[in-house]
Amino acid sequence: MAEKITTRTANYPRWYQDVIEQAGLAQESGVRGCMVIKPHGFAIWEKMQGALDRLFKANGHVNAYFPLFIPKSFLAKEEEMAAGFAKECAVVTHHRLKAVPGQGIIVDPDSKLEEELIIRPTSETIIWNTYRNWIQSYRDLPLLINQWCNVVRWEMRTRLFLRTAEFLWQEGHTAHATKDEAEKEAHLILMDCYRKFAEEWMAMPVLTGPKSDGQKFPGAVYTLCIEAMMQDKKALQAGTSHFLGQNFAKAFDVQFQNKDGKLEHAWATSWGVSTRLVGGLIMSHSDDNGLVLPPRLAPMHAVIVPIYRRPEEKAAVMEACHKLAAAVRDLPLREWLNYDPVVAKVDDREQYQPGYKFAEWEVKGVPIRVELGPKDLEKKACVIARRDRPGKEGKEMGVPLDGAAARIGELLKQMQQELFDRAKTYRDAATYTVDSYDEFKQRIEEGGFFWCHWDGTRETEDKIAQETKATIRCIPFDRSKETGKCMVTGKPSAGRVVFARAY
Amino acid sequence: MAEKITTRTANYPRWYQDVIEQAGLAQESGVRGCMVIKPHGFAIWEKMQGALDRLFKANGHVNAYFPLFIPKSFLAKEEEMAAGFAKECAVVTHHRLKAVPGQGIIVDPDSKLEEELIIRPTSETIIWNTYRNWIQSYRDLPLLINQWCNVVRWEMRTRLFLRTAEFLWQEGHTAHATKDEAEKEAHLILMDCYRKFAEEWMAMPVLTGPKSDGQKFPGAVYTLCIEAMMQDKKALQAGTSHFLGQNFAKAFDVQFQNKDGKLEHAWATSWGVSTRLVGGLIMSHSDDNGLVLPPRLAPMHAVIVPIYRRPEEKAAVMEACHKLAAAVRDLPLREWLNYDPVVAKVDDREQYQPGYKFAEWEVKGVPIRVELGPKDLEKKACVIARRDRPGKEGKEMGVPLDGAAARIGELLKQMQQELFDRAKTYRDAATYTVDSYDEFKQRIEEGGFFWCHWDGTRETEDKIAQETKATIRCIPFDRSKETGKCMVTGKPSAGRVVFARAY
Repeated sequence: MAEKITTRTANYPRWYQDVIEQAGLAQESGVRGCMVIKPHGFAIWEKMQGALDRLFKANGHVNAYFPLFIPKSFLAKEEEMAAGFAKECAVVTHHRLKAVPGQGIIVDPDSKLEEELIIRPTSETIIWNTYRNWIQSYRDLPLLINQWCNVVRWEMRTRLFLRTAEFLWQEGHTAHATKDEAEKEAHLILMDCYRKFAEEWMAMPVLTGPKSDGQKFPGAVYTLCIEAMMQDKKALQAGTSHFLGQNFAKAFDVQFQNKDGKLEHAWATSWGVSTRLVGGLIMSHSDDNGLVLPPRLAPMHAVIVPIYRRPEEKAAVMEACHKLAAAVRDLPLREWLNYDPVVAKVDDREQYQPGYKFAEWEVKGVPIRVELGPKDLEKKACVIARRDRPGKEGKEMGVPLDGAAARIGELLKQMQQELFDRAKTYRDAATYTVDSYDEFKQRIEEGGFFWCHWDGTRETEDKIAQETKATIRCIPFDRSKETGKCMVTGKPSAGRVVFARAY
Repeated sequence: MAEKITTRTANYPRWYQDVIEQAGLAQESGVRGCMVIKPHGFAIWEKMQGALDRLFKANGHVNAYFPLFIPKSFLAKEEEMAAGFAKECAVVTHHRLKAVPGQGIIVDPDSKLEEELIIRPTSETIIWNTYRNWIQSYRDLPLLINQWCNVVRWEMRTRLFLRTAEFLWQEGHTAHATKDEAEKEAHLILMDCYRKFAEEWMAMPVLTGPKSDGQKFPGAVYTLCIEAMMQDKKALQAGTSHFLGQNFAKAFDVQFQNKDGKLEHAWATSWGVSTRLVGGLIMSHSDDNGLVLPPRLAPMHAVIVPIYRRPEEKAAVMEACHKLAAAVRDLPLREWLNYDPVVAKVDDREQYQPGYKFAEWEVKGVPIRVELGPKDLEKKACVIARRDRPGKEGKEMGVPLDGAAARIGELLKQMQQELFDRAKTYRDAATYTVDSYDEFKQRIEEGGFFWCHWDGTRETEDKIAQETKATIRCIPFDRSKETGKCMVTGKPSAGRVVFARAY
């Protein structure tokens, strides 16, 4: 297994591909830019969906479903959005095929649509076209709606999970009676849902704050983001929450009667995270031996590998393995695991050796692996390996079977916390404060987050991007109040912002 | 609320639309043939998904995700499938829009795709194209994979939930080393997942058995189905499970080395249920007052409506309401409810009267409604209404608050069972055995299931369909062994089959 994985230092992008392949997470599909999410990869996405969905619902949101197709004219109604997505739209123009002798199956020219349909790249337009009929009075507000679906953005350069033509995501679309309430919603989603999920579930520390105008969502007044650092010190935009002002309400004529009986346009937010998060998870914790998963997002928490040579040893070993698995399943971790069960499996496959099994589960990122053989049984003990650190616990004395399940519970919780701590330490050590543009240009080559002064203009931002491939990732909420001078132009800066090269 | 609903006897299709509208389940989207599934409708679909997903996984299946797009050439590889779906395909031909002064936004002619892409109407082709690389040896089998996704079939006449251009569904696609194993899988899904879900969750009795050849899935060797009767005595195909033989393995060249070292084509099944089930649920149980939901699929189980006139009554009433709601949430029903929580809500909205609230929750189908006011409180009691029957429990004496939560638990279980019993009694009373084609032609006008002898030919089946609009819905597994003569041709019949008009 692991020998098929390129090391991170040798070639990080290659390592990423290898982990995905060896852990069985996803593959190219044969359809340009679209991926197949394989069962193990999809199981991780299901865990993510479950935890996020509960966070959204705990904050009063409900799910719904809107059409895949967006009439071309809808997209055209909001100018910035049309400009932002026009170049990457999959367009449906016909609705029938027919067999023609000699030509095989062709698109029936008589089935041309009167108006072309765009596969949704995002659903603001179709949703706000619907909200027009749902919102008459302030009593109809707020609308707090989310949908889980697929979207398509025709990407030329794709990379599994990180950038694909079709991807899976959730998109929240809320409508409010006041500007203030909408802004609070955009912040609540960012901090209480996305930040919380990234840090407490994915064990991935994130910066939080607005994007610069140059990086905001087409159609937004402003965009808030969570931004993470990957192991190669590049940034990953992991989630965005947009305050849309009244832009879509005006484009789609969504007005309501306020408490004073006057007509007003509704205020909007939208927000989304996608299967891109699976890529972020891989690049936050995994190592040269394969996938490392934070326990709260692991489809399986512990695997127990029975070890026996002689047939007469089998029965006792298997009994002890299954007893331990049952005790692990009974651990009181359900709330911590989003009310999903603790999953513990005994790998009883006869055709593979224990060493092969151990390596397979290592590549797949199972947090806890247990070995249990006749010698362990004599000591009423077992040996436990935690995926994210070398070595095994109880290799000499053994971990007493009596307390093994409880110990596994402790290790799962410790591992969750330590993955976060380690990622944060790593990020902080690769975060620099730089005042000279020359120094910046030099050091950006090594990667990292750079706190720099910037004059606030789009021109300077574009110049930096052009010259260094680095962009402003975030204007963190918690930045210091220090003002200064732009590292490029020397003009006044209202405060430092974070630059990095990004995925 | 209810006064806005057409009665079932007056106009059943209109009643169906009215219930969907008044209960807030779905609506037309403005995009031809596509619906918006509103939050309450989507919440029911989520409950269905949860229960089905658990049934699939309990039988060893895992989820994955395959692309939305299917290259035209893939569809062409399996002839029957190409012929079956060619007339209802949404076709993507371009991948870019552009703004042209004077013309607005147009499809960029330079972005024409080399090969057109079809929006999946079903995914056998793209999945079997992928399986080719996953299946080398008998050790790779079986593959037991399911996906939850959207599909598109360009329908000209649509009806909310029952027939829409885009719909949501699950599609299982399994690969096996032997014919026998694949056939067992097709049967297992039908009986242990679909039948079980329909009867035990939806409280909707179903016939189970194969379709006639005229009604099978394009590309299948045979199709098994669950078939239900709606309240207007029309049939609804509620789910299908197909044995595909080696058709797709041959079309996509999927071969594996068997235990003897020889190459063989893999054996396949596919199976699916869709958002159509929400339509079936509505038409199985709902009444002239709106939606009736079986408790196991209800997003909310009980609503408690506080009643008070004077402000000084409020505190005590609200306290008792919340105490009861908490006790209902603690009912030991989680396993019965697919490990979802029991949902009990106190409707504390100030702007509405109790009568309005009661009517609203009635239309939305909440199984249990409770009234609790000062007079009830004096008696330490409350009044309970079960959605599926007239009247209230405890209207005179009151239901003691001490035992009210437990009583609600009993009522939920009773209601689930009685909805099923009632639907089955209704179906059985509208199921007839008929031997004369003249009688059949006359009585089919009234609706119902008709057990008739048929000569087994496609010609006769087509003639009957043309003359009566009735089709063979199912050749039930449990039909009697009685042979006879076809009611149309007089030729020998191997046994009775069930005819009906269908959605």
